[in-house]
Amino acid sequence: MKRFAFVLAMLCTACCQAETGYELWLRYQPIANAQYLNACKSLIRSYEVHGTSPTLQAASAELERGLKGMLRISLPRTNPGSIILAKPEHLLSFPNTIKTTLQKTGTEGFIIKTISIDNKKRILISGNTDQAILYGVFHFLRLIQTAQNIHSLDIISIPRSALRLLNHWDNLNRTIERGYAGFSLWQWNNLPACVDQRIIDYARANASIGINGTVLTNVNANALILTDPFLQKVKALADVFRVYGIKTYLTARFSAPIENGNLKTADPLDPAVRAWWKKKVDSIYQLIPDFGGFLVKANSEGQPGPQDYGRTHADGANMLAEALAPHNGIVMWRAFVYSHTSEDRFKQAYEEFKPLDGKFNANVLVQVKNGPIDFQPREPFSPLFGSMPGTPLMMEFQLTQEYLGQGTHLVYEAPLFREVLDADTYANGKGNPVSSTLSGFAGVANIGNDLNWCGHPFAQSNWYALGRLSWDQQLSSEEIAREWIKQTFTTTPAFVEPVLDMMMHSREWLVNYMTPLGLTHIMYNDHHYGPMPWGNSLGRPDWNPVYYHKADSAGIGFNRTSSGSNALSQYAAQVRQQFEQIDTCPDDYLLWFHHASWDHTMQSGRSLWNELCYRYHTATDSVRQMQQQWKSLRRFVDPERFRHVEQLLAIQASEAAWWRDACLLYFQTFSRKPFPAGYEPPAHDLEYYKNLHIRLTY
Amino acid sequence: MKRFAFVLAMLCTACCQAETGYELWLRYQPIANAQYLNACKSLIRSYEVHGTSPTLQAASAELERGLKGMLRISLPRTNPGSIILAKPEHLLSFPNTIKTTLQKTGTEGFIIKTISIDNKKRILISGNTDQAILYGVFHFLRLIQTAQNIHSLDIISIPRSALRLLNHWDNLNRTIERGYAGFSLWQWNNLPACVDQRIIDYARANASIGINGTVLTNVNANALILTDPFLQKVKALADVFRVYGIKTYLTARFSAPIENGNLKTADPLDPAVRAWWKKKVDSIYQLIPDFGGFLVKANSEGQPGPQDYGRTHADGANMLAEALAPHNGIVMWRAFVYSHTSEDRFKQAYEEFKPLDGKFNANVLVQVKNGPIDFQPREPFSPLFGSMPGTPLMMEFQLTQEYLGQGTHLVYEAPLFREVLDADTYANGKGNPVSSTLSGFAGVANIGNDLNWCGHPFAQSNWYALGRLSWDQQLSSEEIAREWIKQTFTTTPAFVEPVLDMMMHSREWLVNYMTPLGLTHIMYNDHHYGPMPWGNSLGRPDWNPVYYHKADSAGIGFNRTSSGSNALSQYAAQVRQQFEQIDTCPDDYLLWFHHASWDHTMQSGRSLWNELCYRYHTATDSVRQMQQQWKSLRRFVDPERFRHVEQLLAIQASEAAWWRDACLLYFQTFSRKPFPAGYEPPAHDLEYYKNLHIRLTY
Repeated sequence: MKRFAFVLAMLCTACCQAETGYELWLRYQPIANAQYLNACKSLIRSYEVHGTSPTLQAASAELERGLKGMLRISLPRTNPGSIILAKPEHLLSFPNTIKTTLQKTGTEGFIIKTISIDNKKRILISGNTDQAILYGVFHFLRLIQTAQNIHSLDIISIPRSALRLLNHWDNLNRTIERGYAGFSLWQWNNLPACVDQRIIDYARANASIGINGTVLTNVNANALILTDPFLQKVKALADVFRVYGIKTYLTARFSAPIENGNLKTADPLDPAVRAWWKKKVDSIYQLIPDFGGFLVKANSEGQPGPQDYGRTHADGANMLAEALAPHNGIVMWRAFVYSHTSEDRFKQAYEEFKPLDGKFNANVLVQVKNGPIDFQPREPFSPLFGSMPGTPLMMEFQLTQEYLGQGTHLVYEAPLFREVLDADTYANGKGNPVSSTLSGFAGVANIGNDLNWCGHPFAQSNWYALGRLSWDQQLSSEEIAREWIKQTFTTTPAFVEPVLDMMMHSREWLVNYMTPLGLTHIMYNDHHYGPMPWGNSLGRPDWNPVYYHKADSAGIGFNRTSSGSNALSQYAAQVRQQFEQIDTCPDDYLLWFHHASWDHTMQSGRSLWNELCYRYHTATDSVRQMQQQWKSLRRFVDPERFRHVEQLLAIQASEAAWWRDACLLYFQTFSRKPFPAGYEPPAHDLEYYKNLHIRLTY
Repeated sequence: MKRFAFVLAMLCTACCQAETGYELWLRYQPIANAQYLNACKSLIRSYEVHGTSPTLQAASAELERGLKGMLRISLPRTNPGSIILAKPEHLLSFPNTIKTTLQKTGTEGFIIKTISIDNKKRILISGNTDQAILYGVFHFLRLIQTAQNIHSLDIISIPRSALRLLNHWDNLNRTIERGYAGFSLWQWNNLPACVDQRIIDYARANASIGINGTVLTNVNANALILTDPFLQKVKALADVFRVYGIKTYLTARFSAPIENGNLKTADPLDPAVRAWWKKKVDSIYQLIPDFGGFLVKANSEGQPGPQDYGRTHADGANMLAEALAPHNGIVMWRAFVYSHTSEDRFKQAYEEFKPLDGKFNANVLVQVKNGPIDFQPREPFSPLFGSMPGTPLMMEFQLTQEYLGQGTHLVYEAPLFREVLDADTYANGKGNPVSSTLSGFAGVANIGNDLNWCGHPFAQSNWYALGRLSWDQQLSSEEIAREWIKQTFTTTPAFVEPVLDMMMHSREWLVNYMTPLGLTHIMYNDHHYGPMPWGNSLGRPDWNPVYYHKADSAGIGFNRTSSGSNALSQYAAQVRQQFEQIDTCPDDYLLWFHHASWDHTMQSGRSLWNELCYRYHTATDSVRQMQQQWKSLRRFVDPERFRHVEQLLAIQASEAAWWRDACLLYFQTFSRKPFPAGYEPPAHDLEYYKNLHIRLTY
């Protein structure tokens, strides 16, 4: 038997295609550990399923596929089966205790429980809806992929947030704004008649991590998507997504009544405009009965909006909300406003939205980026969290790493997500973290049509983390990373633990080789890749890096205390106190809030200048160590993905040094201090770095 | 044994990933026919390889990979081996007869021969270079994939053309002009440090069909590619391609000396300009010693060129040629000129280039599109073929189906290629087909980063055909299609024959539902998809469909005889005679050359109007039959590719009817004749079709 299994493994390796990354974390590779394999096989011999909905068919197909891959069995469907997929009403012998449990699991929560029927162990995967059962099946397969003991299961899992969305910044010409993994998945030209397999696999991947909504189109919106031919195409996608519990959303261009409807205005208080939207929304629901609603970017970076007509964001959002409400649709109205002029960009969103708290209709959520500026490597949480008690808020994280090394640097973002979610807003006193202020989650997708979906093989982990964390905000970054590594590569601890270590540190290293100590937005204009702290050529002050770091001979940093822009006043008093005093402000946030002297003594005991040098250098060294670490793991990884990561890490290591040298040489022109002894000298002079233009925007 | 094999097959199906099309025609699936499998296994037990070059390593790896997949054996390397990869000088016992044969196989030709050593049958794969052996290995694997008898092999294969190129119209921002299969494969931002697996697989695919050159960049060129950082990136790709015998070429923007070199002019007779190009070319060869040369589009559609300085195409090409000559590089200068104004666009290329015959340097080729206009469904061959005896010519075919249904319609192009190649130019009398006038082949690539490379699963066949036909212009379209079907799907005759039939008719059906009887360029402006025969809104006459069909109450078609534009005078007399007389002009070309009365009696006996109706209707019906044919083949195809093709055929069938109805309704406004009885009536009125705008350019 053992020998036979070995032969099989060898032959199957022979016939399988190379690892492309296309399978994501749903690889369902044969279980190598014979003991675990036998344990699984003794418990899993067949399954029964009650019901015939497309969602249950998808659940059955996934169960068969997963177990065929991992256990090498074609799972027969029998009655009774050793796995039971059933809602309570479909099983006569359904245990009463479980019925009671299911009273609190809602429409998406599931249970996986080992029960005994006729003195035989069976695994019951149940919930109140077919969708819940599909989630349960994916979780069950995850247990096996991560080599968990499935002998005696008693799992109850309920999502802590009802809205768990991806936001695709996909244009209708298939380019993706801030996309680093190819073209858009939505092949508009062949839709609606042709829906390719990739759409189904996209839906499977999302369902497997609990994502239940997707906004198909760019927030810099094109009104064409709201025309009838395009809505037919959207319907074709929505028909697939529905099977996997994913609602379809679109971005609504505020001027669509003018562009598509030939109206003279898009004034939200104009009755004809309101009527146009109502009719448009009704027609969408005719096609897509479970349409989710609209995501809107208005009056920001040139997008049209209600302010064009002297109306407020609330006026605009409520108009759409009114049209959507009869269908249970929602409006997600983005708080990212970047056209209003304030003396401190940090303050703009709060200044515009805080006064509107309580003025939005019940089906409007305000969607807030995690920080006050724009997806920087580290930002303090947006002061809107905790400040809008009368308005449901969505968290907007960015998976696509616009400012975090894009498709090139290995950065596991869950620690960033957790840092924000765990930050205490002190709204109504201590113990009210950002996570408690949220009604939903959105991740700006890092997905394109590249073979492996996300460009960097490790970028898949950020898509994964967004889903898992949206479902359960109690999951630690480590737990999520472990799950992902085991499914994506191997369960071998000699691989899992060092890779976990790489991932867990990766974001902190990136902060320190790009923007340590609270530096912000010192990237190149336009493509936002690479260091350009000297940037000072653009028309508006807050488009330039120098605006953000304010380095001069006295020091560096943006004074946002009461003696400066007083952006800190937007936070609760306790938060303000953490940051207001330069001597107690955490080093990691110092330059966010203070213009500090080059000689300022940091909490580390070093001077600010020396600490800056220390951070840039140690982070660069750490990336080099990560590079070596990966090289030592060759034997655990298929050659294709190993080599891909190896090459990308080489770029990352070289670019960390680029960041370090370019920034330190530039800041040295202000500090006029020597580099502390013992550090690697810069490879080139400052002029060299100022003349580097290596990146294209695509 | 049989039972064991069955179990294996089942299990391997279980573990293998779904068919994505990524593997192209190199799928190396397990041989299902036990008898053939055993025959192969009895002949193939091991291999020996003489030499260690990267190319021989690639040949060995491919041999191992292919036989592992098809025979399920890990082929041991032994000495002696049952397969021998060796050049004559590396094998002491090399048969003298074969040495003699190899004297005429050049640097790329190979032999595959069954020989006897020590009374044992061995298969010798040999040639004068490692590259020739790699080609031999790919051919040997093709024999097995197509289930050929390999018992007694005696194959000599020599490419009939030394230049067998792909032209990528890829922009540096990764969009592809006229690309319908995603983003560019060239990930400029991560090059040169990161060369992903897909680049290697691209090179393998090309080598397997004999393609030995690739132009990486769009003919509408960006001078950035000629800057040092980008040349470093090009070098990284060239280093991979070299292993597979593929030379790297670039497009040269004629104004690069101004844009990159800060010169005031790009005048080809200016010494500073000439020196700039010489230095630039020298620097390219420093990086890429086997760099192929430049492809240039000049003074066409807004591209800069020598005419901007009052110089000729020859002046421009020769300047570049002079810089390339010391390195054995070449210039491919495109004859597609579309800015010069002639009363008949048909005549422009000939008018500009014929006078330059003999004036180009020896390392310049003029690259001519197959027809005089622009990759239409059917064109007569370009009159430049046969008219430039003093100039080597390249054939430019377009794989990407810009005017042939793009990524959506199933069109096998080999019959189009063959039709052009076989057309007799009558240069120096009868029996001088276009193929005899050629020194090289270029195919405008239909390749992007979509999972299956080409968008439509059947579009892969056009890439395949270009390679095979460039290697051997004697191959018939049927032979090539059979090879492709067997490798891409299955060798089962019950599948191969009906699919062959679909493919072989597909281009003729497309001609007849789009542009029958010699109609030309009646597609939508800009995206070139769908019917717009009424188009008459653009500034220049020859940008408008009405220019091309000239329909009026008297008739339809473009008079290019001596009583019209006399474009026919550009052909040899015998060719002219074929087309000059309306009564003997073949129906398929009638409207290319004649403005014919609606009542004109066709060779079919029908009137022109009735023949037009007949062609549009029967072609549409044929596409519907193709759709049904495919449905009947479900059991032979994996569900993913089956469904993809099924959906695309549904679009094609519906769009054939769209073409038919839109064109016939429009032309009826001129003919004022009824539709003959018995035909399906149009689904909508003409206004409906005029208001359809369903396609986006991407």
